[in-house]
Parts: sequence; structure tokens; C-alpha cells
Amino acid sequence: MTTMKTAPAGSSKSAPATDRVFNFSAGPGVLPEEVLRIVQQDVWNIGGSGIGILEHSHRGKVADQVFAECDADCRKVGNIPANYKVLFQTGGASAQNHLVPMNFMPAGTTADYIVTGHWAQKSFDAAAALAKFPGGAFGTANLAFSSKDKNHSYIPSKDQLKFSSRPAYVHYCTNNTLYGTEWHRLPETPAGVPLVCDMSSDIYSRPVDISRYALIYAGAQKNVGPAGATLVIIRDDFMEQGGRFIPDLMQYRVFAPEFSRPNTPPVFAVYVMGQVFKWILRSGGLAAMHKHNEAKAKLVYDVLDSTKFYEPHARADSRSLMNITFRLPSDDLADRFVKEAKAQGLDGLKGHRSVGGIRASMYNALPRAGCEALAQFMREFERKNG
Amino acid sequence: MTTMKTAPAGSSKSAPATDRVFNFSAGPGVLPEEVLRIVQQDVWNIGGSGIGILEHSHRGKVADQVFAECDADCRKVGNIPANYKVLFQTGGASAQNHLVPMNFMPAGTTADYIVTGHWAQKSFDAAAALAKFPGGAFGTANLAFSSKDKNHSYIPSKDQLKFSSRPAYVHYCTNNTLYGTEWHRLPETPAGVPLVCDMSSDIYSRPVDISRYALIYAGAQKNVGPAGATLVIIRDDFMEQGGRFIPDLMQYRVFAPEFSRPNTPPVFAVYVMGQVFKWILRSGGLAAMHKHNEAKAKLVYDVLDSTKFYEPHARADSRSLMNITFRLPSDDLADRFVKEAKAQGLDGLKGHRSVGGIRASMYNALPRAGCEALAQFMREFERKNG
Repeated sequence: MTTMKTAPAGSSKSAPATDRVFNFSAGPGVLPEEVLRIVQQDVWNIGGSGIGILEHSHRGKVADQVFAECDADCRKVGNIPANYKVLFQTGGASAQNHLVPMNFMPAGTTADYIVTGHWAQKSFDAAAALAKFPGGAFGTANLAFSSKDKNHSYIPSKDQLKFSSRPAYVHYCTNNTLYGTEWHRLPETPAGVPLVCDMSSDIYSRPVDISRYALIYAGAQKNVGPAGATLVIIRDDFMEQGGRFIPDLMQYRVFAPEFSRPNTPPVFAVYVMGQVFKWILRSGGLAAMHKHNEAKAKLVYDVLDSTKFYEPHARADSRSLMNITFRLPSDDLADRFVKEAKAQGLDGLKGHRSVGGIRASMYNALPRAGCEALAQFMREFERKNG
Repeated sequence: MTTMKTAPAGSSKSAPATDRVFNFSAGPGVLPEEVLRIVQQDVWNIGGSGIGILEHSHRGKVADQVFAECDADCRKVGNIPANYKVLFQTGGASAQNHLVPMNFMPAGTTADYIVTGHWAQKSFDAAAALAKFPGGAFGTANLAFSSKDKNHSYIPSKDQLKFSSRPAYVHYCTNNTLYGTEWHRLPETPAGVPLVCDMSSDIYSRPVDISRYALIYAGAQKNVGPAGATLVIIRDDFMEQGGRFIPDLMQYRVFAPEFSRPNTPPVFAVYVMGQVFKWILRSGGLAAMHKHNEAKAKLVYDVLDSTKFYEPHARADSRSLMNITFRLPSDDLADRFVKEAKAQGLDGLKGHRSVGGIRASMYNALPRAGCEALAQFMREFERKNG
């Protein structure tokens, strides 16, 4: 409800507040400090209502405004076409893993999955597990590709994708948080096949052509808000194809009217998401966000490319702007890296056990100064231990 | 993470902060002001970590502590036996309406539903709708009772309940938010039949014997927190009976390990719930909360009983301590009541359209002074308009 004017994200102030650290967590992750300051006020009393945002009825005027603005701002940020709905759900991206096939992979159909990492694998597994339903209620999940052969260190080329003849949809995940890889193009899918995408860890980090997708989903807790809300962007005609025998609250169409309030929604998480959309708009939108994120990632990739001390996990053409993964000469050194970085106010750098080493997550809200500090720390650490 | 000492709830200060009003919203509803002050700090920087509660990894040390304390405090408040799990889920009580029968009403079984209001009806409808699944994956829902004949103004007697021969479970709802009725005893169910209960609007408003239930669920947004988390208390042996062919994230057992984090949980909503549990404990626990709520409700019921101007909806023996519903001689007068009350800082009093008139919701966190002010306003309003 509060409005502020600020400089573009790229020129944001050079250090966090003195009682805050640089947060490289893979998610839930860093939020803009401006947004946190607004939240602090609105938790007590939002818009002069005498009631905090946590305490307002989800059917009242304040919630109406929060949801309408969140929808409008989400559309403005993503330039979302009018024939798409923006839905605010719960359960995280993980719940979408079964909701998508329960809606769109009915008995007798096949859905294709491109697996480029841990989360894409989970999406495929959840679709495949529907075969356990008695009575053959659902269709079949087909593995169109997996990069497991090289521990998910790369994004496949066009000729590596093996689609089934007429898939109900193709599912992929744009950014692989654990492995630090990211799609920099759309997968080359058969003409006319609906494309479904898990964008949890890079949504709104760069411009996106929504019109190429039938359904996009994203857990909010990386680039667009706190844990507790799931953003779904869905094309109207695809939404209407969804199964009608599954429970109402599992059908996307039920969330479409009145800004996703068929039941009590996660008001606060949606409210924070709305504040993040406003912050993106004030910061210059997705083009500015992309430039900001490219510049940040370059600071760290430049260090990786200048030495053999650090070993990047992702193949060079598959590198993520959101999560940078690399190993050190030994596990002991990696542990020391994490500890010493934390002591210098660089938090959350420990890599996932499936890759080891270091993972630096650099979502929209991480200031450029955080990446400068990390790059400098990496050079220093190499000088002392290389 | 912050600890505070305060006087019992019954003696809480007589008025809200000058920039806050008395909030009679049916939910999401009022939270303790002490809790909001703690939230304001922790959103910026929790426990000196340099990172706010919205930005911490759900697998990190801060989240570990938040979830462990929330679990422990929830158990302490409710005196929950060791053979029960406390689960923190999403989707609200409405999602439980299909999750319960999908887990516990397998093909060939019947589950009995006692319908005493809008939400109990929705629970029954969601269970009955599972008949639409192809292949007969689920069982049958049986209506054991409905108070629809008198617009849900009463709680049934023992002899009005008509159970099926061997139900898989009996489901009921303790407090009927829209109608202002509440169960003041357990329903007399057949011996050995698991009892499932929606306690969304009166959980932890009074002592509860958890051991009588197989499963209790509650949307957090009335007595125990903000919207966005659902509290589930489930007996171990019952949990293990749950269906294994439904998606993992729909199986209760999947939430049991590691404090409900099979996927990214709604960290903030659980954190606030934990702060509310601490507040209940500081306020003297459920016995004190019950006394506090009885005293508050009496202030308003005494006005209703002293006049014919206001017409209570609930039968006297079925009155709720949480939601008081009554009508005025005309709709115009009711509208004026709501407007004038709001002008005096008494917010959220408009009744639900299915009952009309006024609904005053008086959850744990509503101070006694709010009920005193409402009772006084009611007397004044009658004097001027009676």
C-alpha cells in the first residue's frame, strides 16, 4: 500500500544495513530491504486501517486491494497477455508436481518430461507415481531427456530431446538451483504441444515471453517473495482443459475468479509478493533486472575463469545467472571457505551435498555489492590457500 | 526467538494501541499486539543472524529452531500425548476436506459426517465428490446428521446422530463460525471409531482432550496465527493407515519427519504460530484462555439476554464463545450498527449473508476491553434506536 521511489537495482546501495549480512541462500532467500521496511509497518497497521496485514479478512477491502494490485503488478512486470490468468496458490512448486499431471495428464495420454536437475526429476517422479492410482485414473509420464549422466552439469541440445509422438504437454525447469545450470533458450518442442515450466528459481530475473507457455509455476521464495505462496501463470484455454473429477481445490480453474480466493489464501505471502513486484517495477523492470543479474554473475564467473583453483560445476554454455556452483581442491578447504566467508558477512554459501563445494545464489534482491565482496573474498582465499 | 513476560490474558491492557482498532473479524483475525511487535523485529533480523525470518533457508539453523520450538510449544499448550504428531501444512482447512477422505476413506469404506454449519457441509461435499474419480478409487461419504432444517442454529443431541454401521471415521466441526454455534461436548460416536475434527475456529480457545481424537485440523488464521499454515494433530497409528497411492505430499506420514519439511514449508506462518503458542503459555495456558473467553462472551450474551431488541441466532444451549451472531429489527438498523460501531473503533462486525445481522468474533487475542466496548455500544445503540 505504501509507495516509494528508488534508484534502479543496479545502483542500489553498496552494503547491507549494518545489522544485516549478504545472504547467498538458495531459497528462501534475500528480499529487498526496502520491502522489509514496508512489511514492518504494515504488520502493525496497513493503510491506516488500524489492523495489520496478518489480521485482515481475506474478503475485506484491504485484502481486495492487496490481491488486485499484486495481480496487476505481476502482469505489468511480466507483460502477461490478457488470455492468461495469474493464480496465487499454496503448497510450493512441489505441489505443482502432482497438480499439473492430475489436471493435464488424463488416462490414455502421455506427458513428456525433460530432466536437467533435482527438481525436474522430482516433477517427473510425481507424474510417474500417478500410475499407482487404482482404476487407471491418469496417463503416463515419459522421460524425454535426462542429464543425469554428467551429474546435471549441462543443458541438452535440440537433438538430445526425444519426445513421444503426441505428448499432452512438455515439462521442463528453467534453472537448476542445485547444479547451477540454466536454459538460455526455449526447448525445441513439437509444434502445438503445450509447454509447462517450473521457473521457481529464475522467474522474473530476466524478460520472459509468457506467450510461449501454457503454464508457468514458481515457488515465491527465491525471486518474488517469501515461502508460502506459489505463483501460477496459466493460459485460459489450457486451464479449461484441466480434469474435472479431481477435488475442486486441485483444479486451476477454481482459483481463477476473484484473484485466487476460493478459500482463505496465504494473504501475507501474496502481499509480500506484491511488494516485490512493486520493487521490480521501481527498479526498472525485467530488462534492468537482467542487466543487474548479468553484471553480478560476471563478477564471480570472472574469478572462476581466471584460475584452476576453483572448479566450476556447470558447463560454460549452461551457466546459471542465479546459482553459481564450484568446488575447491578439497572438502576441508570448502568448509574453511564457508566459515571464513560467513565471518565476513557472506552467508549461505555451502553447496548442496549432491554437488559439493560452494553454491552462491544471487537472486534479484542480492545487491551487486554482495557479489563484489564475494569475488574479492574468493581472490583473497585463493591467494592464501592456492 | 524473543522472550517476553506478561500478565495473564484476562488482565491485558484495556485498550488497543492508539493507532489500532478492536478487530472482530471472523478470520483472518486479531493477533496479540505483543506478537506483532516481535514479528516487526524478526522480519528484519531474527536472533542476531543478520537475516530476517522471511529470508532464512528452511533447512538452516534458525528455521530448525523455529520449527522445533513451534512443535514443542504446540505440544505444551495442548498437552498433546507422545503418540501424536504435530504437522504444519498449507492449503487451509479447505484442503483438509479432500485430504482426509483421500487418506482415510479408501474404496469399500464409508465415512460419517455430522453437518452443523457451512464448513462441515463443505467437508461432507468434498468427501462425497471423490465418487467422481474414475475407477472407484475412494469410498462413500454418509451424512450422519444435518442441522440445515433450522439454518444451523443448534448442536444436535445424541439421539439425532445416525451413524452408519462401521464408519472408517466420524467427522465433525467443533465451532460454526458463520452461525455462532459450538459443541460443548464430544459427539457420542460408536466405540472405537476414529474421530476427525475441524477445529479451525476454536482450537486452543479452551482445554481440549487430544487423546479423544484421531485427527484434528485447523486453519491457523483464527486462534493460532495468520493465514497460510494449517495445523494438523494426528495419532501415529491412524496416520499410518493413510492411503499410499495418492501423491506423496498428500500423505500425512510424509510430513511427520523433521517437523513438516518434506518440501519448502510456509516458514513465516509457522513462525508466527510459534509466537502465538508462546503468548498463550505466557498468558497462563488454555485454562486461563478459556476463562478469559468465557468472561468476554458473557459480556455480550448478557446484553442479548436483557432485551428483545437483539435476536440471537444460536439456540441458548449451543452458543459459541468465539462467534456471537444476532440480528436487529431491520437490515437498515444492522447496517447502521456496523457503520457506527466501526466509527467507534469496533471493526468487522457485519454478519455473514447466510445469517444476516451481526457477527462478533472474539478470538483469544481480542482483549476483554473490546467486548466491554461492544457491550456498551450495543446498549447505547438500543437506547437510541429501540
